[in-house]
Formats: sequence, C-alpha cells, structure tokens
Amino acid sequence: MNKQAWLNEKYPQQEERSERFSTISDMEIEPVYTPDDLNGSNLEGVGYPGEYPYTRGVYPSMYRGRYWTMRQFAGFGTPEDTNQRFKLLLSEGQTGLSTAFDMPVLMGYDADHPRSLGEVGREGVSVSTIKDMERLFQDIPLDKVSTSMTVNCTASILLAMYIAVADKQGIPRSQISGTIQNDMLKEYIAQKEWICPPEPAVRIVTDMIEFCAKEVPRWHAVSISGYHIREAGSTAVQELAFTLADGIGYVQAGMERGLDVDEFAPRLSFFFDIHNDFFEEIAKLRAARRMWATIMKERFNAKNPRSMLLRTHCQTAGVSLTAQQPVNNVVRVAIQALAGVLGGTQSLHTNSMDETLALPTEESVTVALRTQQIIAEESGVTNFVDPLGGSWAIEALTDRMEKEAFAYIDRIDELGGIIRAINIGFPQKEIADAAYRYQQQLDAREKVIVGVNSHAVEEERPMEILKIDPEVERSQIAQVTQVKQGRDKATAEEQLGRVHAAARNGQNLMPVLIDAVKAHCTVGEISDVYREVFGVYQDPAWL
Amino acid sequence: MNKQAWLNEKYPQQEERSERFSTISDMEIEPVYTPDDLNGSNLEGVGYPGEYPYTRGVYPSMYRGRYWTMRQFAGFGTPEDTNQRFKLLLSEGQTGLSTAFDMPVLMGYDADHPRSLGEVGREGVSVSTIKDMERLFQDIPLDKVSTSMTVNCTASILLAMYIAVADKQGIPRSQISGTIQNDMLKEYIAQKEWICPPEPAVRIVTDMIEFCAKEVPRWHAVSISGYHIREAGSTAVQELAFTLADGIGYVQAGMERGLDVDEFAPRLSFFFDIHNDFFEEIAKLRAARRMWATIMKERFNAKNPRSMLLRTHCQTAGVSLTAQQPVNNVVRVAIQALAGVLGGTQSLHTNSMDETLALPTEESVTVALRTQQIIAEESGVTNFVDPLGGSWAIEALTDRMEKEAFAYIDRIDELGGIIRAINIGFPQKEIADAAYRYQQQLDAREKVIVGVNSHAVEEERPMEILKIDPEVERSQIAQVTQVKQGRDKATAEEQLGRVHAAARNGQNLMPVLIDAVKAHCTVGEISDVYREVFGVYQDPAWL
Repeated sequence: MNKQAWLNEKYPQQEERSERFSTISDMEIEPVYTPDDLNGSNLEGVGYPGEYPYTRGVYPSMYRGRYWTMRQFAGFGTPEDTNQRFKLLLSEGQTGLSTAFDMPVLMGYDADHPRSLGEVGREGVSVSTIKDMERLFQDIPLDKVSTSMTVNCTASILLAMYIAVADKQGIPRSQISGTIQNDMLKEYIAQKEWICPPEPAVRIVTDMIEFCAKEVPRWHAVSISGYHIREAGSTAVQELAFTLADGIGYVQAGMERGLDVDEFAPRLSFFFDIHNDFFEEIAKLRAARRMWATIMKERFNAKNPRSMLLRTHCQTAGVSLTAQQPVNNVVRVAIQALAGVLGGTQSLHTNSMDETLALPTEESVTVALRTQQIIAEESGVTNFVDPLGGSWAIEALTDRMEKEAFAYIDRIDELGGIIRAINIGFPQKEIADAAYRYQQQLDAREKVIVGVNSHAVEEERPMEILKIDPEVERSQIAQVTQVKQGRDKATAEEQLGRVHAAARNGQNLMPVLIDAVKAHCTVGEISDVYREVFGVYQDPAWL
Repeated sequence: MNKQAWLNEKYPQQEERSERFSTISDMEIEPVYTPDDLNGSNLEGVGYPGEYPYTRGVYPSMYRGRYWTMRQFAGFGTPEDTNQRFKLLLSEGQTGLSTAFDMPVLMGYDADHPRSLGEVGREGVSVSTIKDMERLFQDIPLDKVSTSMTVNCTASILLAMYIAVADKQGIPRSQISGTIQNDMLKEYIAQKEWICPPEPAVRIVTDMIEFCAKEVPRWHAVSISGYHIREAGSTAVQELAFTLADGIGYVQAGMERGLDVDEFAPRLSFFFDIHNDFFEEIAKLRAARRMWATIMKERFNAKNPRSMLLRTHCQTAGVSLTAQQPVNNVVRVAIQALAGVLGGTQSLHTNSMDETLALPTEESVTVALRTQQIIAEESGVTNFVDPLGGSWAIEALTDRMEKEAFAYIDRIDELGGIIRAINIGFPQKEIADAAYRYQQQLDAREKVIVGVNSHAVEEERPMEILKIDPEVERSQIAQVTQVKQGRDKATAEEQLGRVHAAARNGQNLMPVLIDAVKAHCTVGEISDVYREVFGVYQDPAWL
C-alpha cells in the first residue's frame, strides 16, 4: 500500500473529530507521515549527534554525557531574600542560578526613584548598587556556580557589578561563568523594555560581546531570546525566525566591530520558549540547531565548529499556565519540559504552578525542580540521544519549520536586516497578527485551554501564595540612600563622567562600567547617562 | 560518516555519566540509533495505521477520529458513595466508568462475613447483593455509559449482577457495553487473588466469553491484564510476553469450547501498565499490537481483521508513585499518560497523586482526569497518528521487545502452554527474579526514584486524605442482612442449587448466575459454591 492509497481508501473509514488539525501555531498536520513526507531529507541531512548540521544535538553523547543545567529563574524582595532562595535551590539539587530582577532594575531606576514606587522587589530582586549585588551572592562562590541574569537594557551595568563582585572576592575573571540575557533586539520586537534606540543598544551588546570574548571567556554575553517573542503571541516558526534573525544581527555587529567570527560566536547562546504543542516544540529546537549551523557556516564562513553550535536555555511557557486549577500547571510544565529535553536543550527552567498568581512559593518551586529531576532520573529519556530522530512526523515537521523560518529570514534580509525590519515594525506586526488569530481560535474553541474554555469549574480553592512584605521597599530605599551618602562623591562623579565619555566616543563601555560600579555608581545613575547620551526610544507603534 | 565511525571517533569525545545505560527493565540502550539499527524493519514491517500488523495503531485515524476513553478507576465505601463519585467524574468530562470493588468482593465474601471485617468499602466499593449493584448505578443509564469492572475470581457473579440490573432497567443486553477484568491467569502469575485452581477458573472465563459473544455483544468478557504482572515487578518484556501468553490461553480455551475464533476474538481486550520508562512503554504497546496481530493471523488463522486488533486499556503505574512529596506524582503520571497515548491506547486511567496514601480525594482525582484532558486537548499530540513511527530508536526498541517477548512465548509453548507454565511457577519465578534485580539496582542507586533514593527531604507536609467512615461497614452489613432476611429463601436456595449443578456438569454458568443474583443470592454464597465444587487453589510457592 502507498500513502495515497491509504489516504483515499483507509483513512476516510472513520469520521474525524475536527475539520482541520493544526498545531497551536496553526501549522496543519497531515493524517499520517511516512518516508514520502521527508522531501529528500534522510540520515545525510539529519546527521549524527554532535556533527554538522547538529539536527540531532550539539554534543555526541548529549544527556548520556551529562544532564542539562537545571536552572530555576528566581528573584524577589531584598537581595537577602533571593540569596536565601538561591541556597534552597542549590540544596535541592539545582545546578545553576538564574536571577530575576525587579522592574526598576529592568528599566534602569534605583529603588529610591519615584518611578520605582510599589515595584521594588515585587517581581524580582531589587539591586541598585554593588552592595546589593554582594548581598545577593553572599556565601555563594562565584567560581563554583554558573549564574544567569535576566536583564536587558541595563545588562551592561549588572554584568559590570557581577564582575566587580568577583574581583572583590578575588576570583579571576576567567573563572566566572554564566549568561546575561542582554538581547535588546527582542525587546523592540516583543518585550518592550528599553532605554535607548536599537542602534546604540546593539552597540552596547557588542561592547559586551567583545569584552567577554577577551576578558571573561566563560561568560555568554548575550542570550538570544525567542522566549519573549513567543510569549507575546508569535507562532513557533516566528519565534524561530526572529530569534535567529536577531542572532544574525549580533553576529553582523560583531564582525563590523572587526572581531573574527570564530572569536565571539562560540559564546553566543540562545533562549527558547517551550509551549504546549509537544512535537512542534521538539521540531523547533531541532530546526533551530540545523539552521544556525547552516547560517554560521554558509553565511558567515565560520570555521570553528563551536561557532556553529546553537546552545540554548529553555523555559516552559509562562503564558500557557492558568490561574484556574493551578495544579493543572504541573501537568503542562511536565509535558513542556519533556519536549525541551527531547528537543535537546542545554539548560531548563520549569515554571512553578503558582506563577500566574504570584511569585512561586518554596513548595511550588521545589515541585518544578523535581519535574526536571524526574525527567532526568526516572523517565529513561536521558539514556537516548535524539530518540525521535528518523520519525517521519518529526523529521517532516523539522524540515517544514526550517523552510518557513528561512523564508522569514529572507524577507528580513530584503528589508535591510533586523534593525530596519524592527524600525518599520515588521516582526511586531507579524506577531500581533498571529496573536490575534490565536485569540480568535480560542474564542471559537478551535484551540482549547483546559480549565478556561474547556472543563472550567465554578469555584477554585485558594492557593497559598508568596507575598512581598512592603518593608522590602523601605529597606531597599534606605540601603541605596546610605550607599549614596557614604561613598566618595568626587570619585563617583568622576566615574560617571568616564562612562559618559565612553558612551559618546565609542570606546568599549565595560571597563569603565566596572570601575564605576566599584565606585558605587548606581543602576539608575548609569542608566541616566545612557538616556542622556543615546536618547530615549519611542515605540514606533506609538508614533 | 557511518555509525561505526561515529561510535569509534566521535562519541568517545565526551565522558559518559554512567557505565551503562538501560531502561527501567534493564534493557540496554545504544549510544545512537540510525537506519542501521532497524534490522530490516521498514515501512513494510511497520505498516499503516489501521492496517495489519497494526504497529502504528488499530484504527486509521486514531485520536483524529476520537480521543481514547478517559476512564478513572473509582470505588470506595457504600454503593451510594461510589455512585456519587461516578457522577462527579462524568460531570468533569470523564467518558467511561471504572469500578473498584473492595477486598471482600474480590475474594468472594459478603460484607457480613468474618473475613470481611475491617475491609468493607475500604479499597473499593462494597457489593454483596444485586440491591447493592442497583444502588451503585442509581440514575446512571446503562445504555449510555461504558462500564469497566475490576474483579476476577468473582467476575462471573458481578457481571451477572450488572446484566440483571440492566434487565431490570429494561435495557436490552445488546445495548450495554463495558469490560470486566476477569483475567484469572494473571492472578496465578502475579496478583494472587483466586478462589479455585486455574483449570476451572479458565472454564468460568470461557463461559463468560461464550455467553457475551452470543448475548452481550458489546461487552468485553475479559481484559487480559499485564498491569498486575508489571506491578508485581516484571520487566516490560515479561509483561508483554506473559500477557499475550495469557491471551493465547484464552483463545485456545475458546476454540476448545468449539467457538469459531472470529466469533469471540474481536471482543478480547487488554490492559497494560504504563511505567516510568517513556520510550520502553511506547515501544511495548507498538510491539504488543504487532505481536497480537501476528499471533491471531498466523497461529489461530483468524480471518476477521477485528480478531487481530489488540485494543487496550492502560493505567499509569501505581507502583511508581511515592508517598514522599506526593505532588511529584502528578509529574510521573503526566509523563506516563503521555507515553500511553503515544503508544496508542484506547482507554486510560491516570493515577491520583495521593493513591499511595489513601483512596484519592475529589481534588486529586480531578487533577488526574485533567492530566488526560490536557494531553488530549492542549498538547497537540492527538493531531498525529503514531507520531513516533519511523524513529530509529523507537522502531529498534519495538523490534527488540517483540523478539524478546516471542522468545518467552516460545518457551511457554515448550512448557506445554500457559496453565502448565503457571503450575510449575515459571512466569512467577521470572518476575521474582526481575523484581529482585531491580531492587538491587535501586539499592545501588543505579536506578533512581526521586524523593526516595534521590533528592529525599526530611519533612513532608501532610496531605488531606480521604478516610472511610467505619459506619460504612455497619451499614453494608445491615444491608446484606436485610436482603438475606427479606428474600424468598426457597427460591434463593433453589437457584444456588442450579449454580451448583451447572458448575459440576459443565453447562454455561452465566444464565443460571443471572437468575441466582436476581433471586438475591449473594457474592459470598455463590463463591462458596465455587469453593465447594472446584476446590480452593494453593499457591505452588507455598506448597
């Protein structure tokens, strides 16, 4: 029997429960996949694990070598509060730290700024000065952990603080390792947390890439992030395409700076969302690896195989979780996490069941971490390297997502690159359209969220949630005030002046930033310099 | 690059985290799977969904046609208690009922028997008489639901009661549908709940197969169960092999009774465990379908394709759940349930997180049901038919499990069939050996249970658990006493005499059982007839 005969004669024997079958991103799914669906893809195109084009994984032995890094995003209240949570997570078996900063940090204001009112320590840890950073990592040896910091328009300042803390702990810069998110392009596309316009923002990112390549070789200076693109409502293909287009933008910027591609590309890292659609997500990660390898080799002539590896952190989809029946989120997160692992991620955050309600409690964050441990240690999937390789459905989905994402990248190239595409609102509009279509499908119940538009129940039992003490804000304001009063005013001013000069004259900002934070210049003060020199970006949607 | 070159040159570049990689059943896993691992298996051997040998599923459109039956096993306390739980589950979107009976029912004693003391309604619903059965299904139209009943050595009596209730509700026997577990062979192999020896037990099962084939055509008279074999500590291959060997035993018994194989084989159904090892479980279900199709076609010369279909209920592995950190069980169950679905099950029970502590609460059973609904409606996997088909790893595992399970079946044939193999303790010993090996691996931490021998924590928060009111026992004793006092004694005695005669003379028991339960003969009284006529079985391990 061939596929066409089966489709004509056998498949129609049963009624279908729906007129159309598509992924959550609305990619249509065939009734069956067979070797005929591979369009010439074969073992040659798929390759071996750890071999170009890395479809099957960036390392030969993958989780038979070691598990992914289990890295729970955590941060709230004072630096002491978060320090305590970090220590809990490390004691529960977490293998890397991941820091959430509060809104004032993310937008470049100190705790004592009027705009920070009510936001200090609320959705992340409050940090205004190097003293806060020291308290945050108190008793955590920075040469022994790998630390991720989720911060973007002020990433340069926070990384300077982290390096300064390591300097003060006497740890060589070559020994500290971690990742700073620092992906400004996706801010313009999706998350919308910025200070200055794209061009100077990319220049600062490039300063950091250059500085880390030379001085902090185990640090990932940028984590090119699809997560927020997806959470803003994009499809999986858009997430894939715009993330890799952002990556192309950073590589171009680095090369225009005069860096050799193989000098900095091995330290670029990625960050993807893992949404509900199990096979679409697995195929997305496999396609992402193959696409990035191809781009680096063919477009940028990278020679070092390490430049071609797409290494990625993943996080389960916050947007997929529901306030209704929160224990259901444990199920969603488990399935999403498994997709991330079968997709071959290097690092994973699993969301806590109560995250739609508040910051996670100790109990719920422990369940989230246990989810990863059960997948790693009980499910048996970590005995296999790319266990889904060869599946007709998965290989066909992988091929198709690659093709559709490359079509987007071609379009962006035609528009003159990602910064120009952003400036005319192209990716923003594509995402908005996709989000609108999905909402329509939800309203029509063509797509379902259990507990929301399906199996909803009248009453919910209240969950115990974590509340932030208002005392946090008062104490953080007191801390920053004390630092400002206690520091050597003249030195601080001199250092801010040096940041100002470096920002203007194009000199790499990182060395002067490290000096400035050591002189107790604050997040808000340095951000003010950026505002002054680079100007403040206006969303084209608001013009 | 070929596989050998990759294995020699590339794979050893990274250290492995373990000396040996094996499934939870200790099946060794290769570093990578490629087309070379398929040993000649190809699309021809795998086939199309809904086509012989049914590796890819028993129906062409599988879950694109309709979802599996979501069937939560439930029963506790009085018939009224369980009736209320049934109604909750139906209102929450469950699509089939599944009845747990208490230990007295399972062993053939009435609620008022001294051996029932302390057990009435404790681990399932208490039923002694047809009146109890009527209260159990009060206001549930038996022609509208499909009902599963988990009961074995007294299955004939409970099925007689169910049919009698339908008769009294005026519902034609052709309209009732469901399954009764009724797999006595697996009792001798694993679960050890029996009354009489294997030969008369199989005769009663055969009576039921014959009766249902003729009178209750939508009823599955036996659910051939690997679940208890696995829960007793077997490997996945042993579960597969001994279950299909039991199936062969029932088919042989039916044919020896003079039935045409195509008359009864289409109503045989199966029941497998879905344990932790994700890919092993998926491969097990795929292998099971292909093996059963081959057995029915080649060994028994079945002509009707429906005789070749292995349709199965699955349940997540109770034995895999932990009393420690019970919310972790939600994660285990989600992953296991997903494996059952990707393996192509027709029906699924998902365990509740608190089942190791007590009978599930309403809240926990709802989460378990939501787990299935999220997989069905959110994960996107139900858009695909056999999405893992073609995966080199899955196809290789499927082939290998099939081969190893057929080797066991050959061995059982050499021993003279499953009843003789049971009588000399062969499957029992194989399972005991496997359970012992696994325990050694747990002790050595070669196998891990999160929260038990890995990531254990000192203190646990107590969960709210369901407690059975001691009043249940008093009230059920009162009910059975009342029925015994209120019935027509002479009729009841006459009917018990007819059961006695039918048991002795080989006449089909079902019609007389239905009459007997209508005359208010009880579970215990009819079981006593079985004990008297057939004798009581002694475990060979205890001889």
